[in-house]
Amino acid sequence: MKRNERLVDFTNFLINHPNKMLNLNELSKHYEVAKSSISEDLVFIRRVFENQGVGIVETFPGSLGGVRFTPYISDERSREMTEEIAELLREENRILPGGYIYLSDILGLPSNLRKIGQIIAHEYHDKQVDVIMTIATKGIPIAQSVAEILDVPFVIVRRDPKVTEGATLNVNYMSGSSSRVENMTLSKRSLSIGQNVLIVDDFMKGAGTINGMKSLVHEFDCFLAGIAVFLEGPFKGERLVDDYKSILKVDRIDIANRTIDVKLGNIFDENEPK
Amino acid sequence: MKRNERLVDFTNFLINHPNKMLNLNELSKHYEVAKSSISEDLVFIRRVFENQGVGIVETFPGSLGGVRFTPYISDERSREMTEEIAELLREENRILPGGYIYLSDILGLPSNLRKIGQIIAHEYHDKQVDVIMTIATKGIPIAQSVAEILDVPFVIVRRDPKVTEGATLNVNYMSGSSSRVENMTLSKRSLSIGQNVLIVDDFMKGAGTINGMKSLVHEFDCFLAGIAVFLEGPFKGERLVDDYKSILKVDRIDIANRTIDVKLGNIFDENEPK
Repeated sequence: MKRNERLVDFTNFLINHPNKMLNLNELSKHYEVAKSSISEDLVFIRRVFENQGVGIVETFPGSLGGVRFTPYISDERSREMTEEIAELLREENRILPGGYIYLSDILGLPSNLRKIGQIIAHEYHDKQVDVIMTIATKGIPIAQSVAEILDVPFVIVRRDPKVTEGATLNVNYMSGSSSRVENMTLSKRSLSIGQNVLIVDDFMKGAGTINGMKSLVHEFDCFLAGIAVFLEGPFKGERLVDDYKSILKVDRIDIANRTIDVKLGNIFDENEPK
Repeated sequence: MKRNERLVDFTNFLINHPNKMLNLNELSKHYEVAKSSISEDLVFIRRVFENQGVGIVETFPGSLGGVRFTPYISDERSREMTEEIAELLREENRILPGGYIYLSDILGLPSNLRKIGQIIAHEYHDKQVDVIMTIATKGIPIAQSVAEILDVPFVIVRRDPKVTEGATLNVNYMSGSSSRVENMTLSKRSLSIGQNVLIVDDFMKGAGTINGMKSLVHEFDCFLAGIAVFLEGPFKGERLVDDYKSILKVDRIDIANRTIDVKLGNIFDENEPK
């Protein structure tokens, strides 16, 4: 394979193996060229990936030396993508009877989900995350998108146990908005002791559901790596959870004028510790 | 940007814009080189993508000429990936009380989902598919994976209507295994008249649920582009649907010996019309 072709192949290979340590000796054998040629290729790839905001290419020296590609977007790009999605949310025909917001089309389009996944992954790129947790139904596509970028599994909490889940661990929780006691359940096999769990969901009001997932993380003897919600809705009073990050925030839904007041969420707050 | 760097950037760009017609004049402007240089780059990229089974790179001549990258895997690669997933299914600790099979870990790992998405997308690459339909909960990750590769939206049918879905269209259907009448619902906004809908799901026995989704497609005045299920379970008697494709098939679950007899599904049948 000529250098030009190798560069194309190598670029494709790195993109499809994110967050993995790739051995330089094996790459050199695979492409049938000296390690120095592989290193030269990496100079080009690194420069382009960093300039274009694709991600970081790190090389590690030594006999076990390797290269690792970590997808990474800039703060500017994260904010830009968030603004693009905020525009979709501001469309007036989204307001449903009762002041609910229709989100299913936004969360059913792969290009939007890729952006949401990148924005959340960006926020947690320097944290140890072993697994993503969400609750059925609309949180699932978000969990899957984040999991893809971080290259970790995701688990789905349900409100009702199913025969296809085997033994489950169940917790009760208070719904934050309606103060009812509810139940949520997760297959016992889903998590191992000591894993770092990132909770994600599509929408949060009183944070009751999020709080339920937090107690599940605890009951599984796992650690909470973080909480990220796509959209934070208006809520009067104190939320059950305050250690969350939101991408977008709705302060007010004006049903009469059919307008939604959409703002950037607290992940863009300057004083927030990152 | 030098040619080497341009090749890296261009490769990344194509991979991230699947199924899109990209204008050659605009690419030439963007990279500040002659169209002939872009065409030369594409020779390398096309050769590698085709040899490595990444996809097809087509160029279209003329003043409106362009280039389009379509992800595509070979029949061999599709079969190979299916065998890899079959191995996971054969693990003995998957059998749950009642003869159910635990799938949540397989369907919660991005690398498996990418494979399943590629296998299904491969099967429908020459069909017009405008939207993917699935039913909550476990079909969702599969729908999302196929939608990503085909670059189309996906919609989620539910068993219970939610206030966040707006007006819904509901159908009743007979559960194939238990002969109960059930209800399923989809937001009216989800589909437009005349769209070509590919139905996907994780598991099929009597095909009652699939049949329900078929009638939903009909009630929305849409067309059925196909039906693809990840796993076809053992079923005695006649299924409600016979025009489906399955990736894998379980003929027998031997609870005493804890073995699952997993075979390739009918998408690999040679006599099946493709």
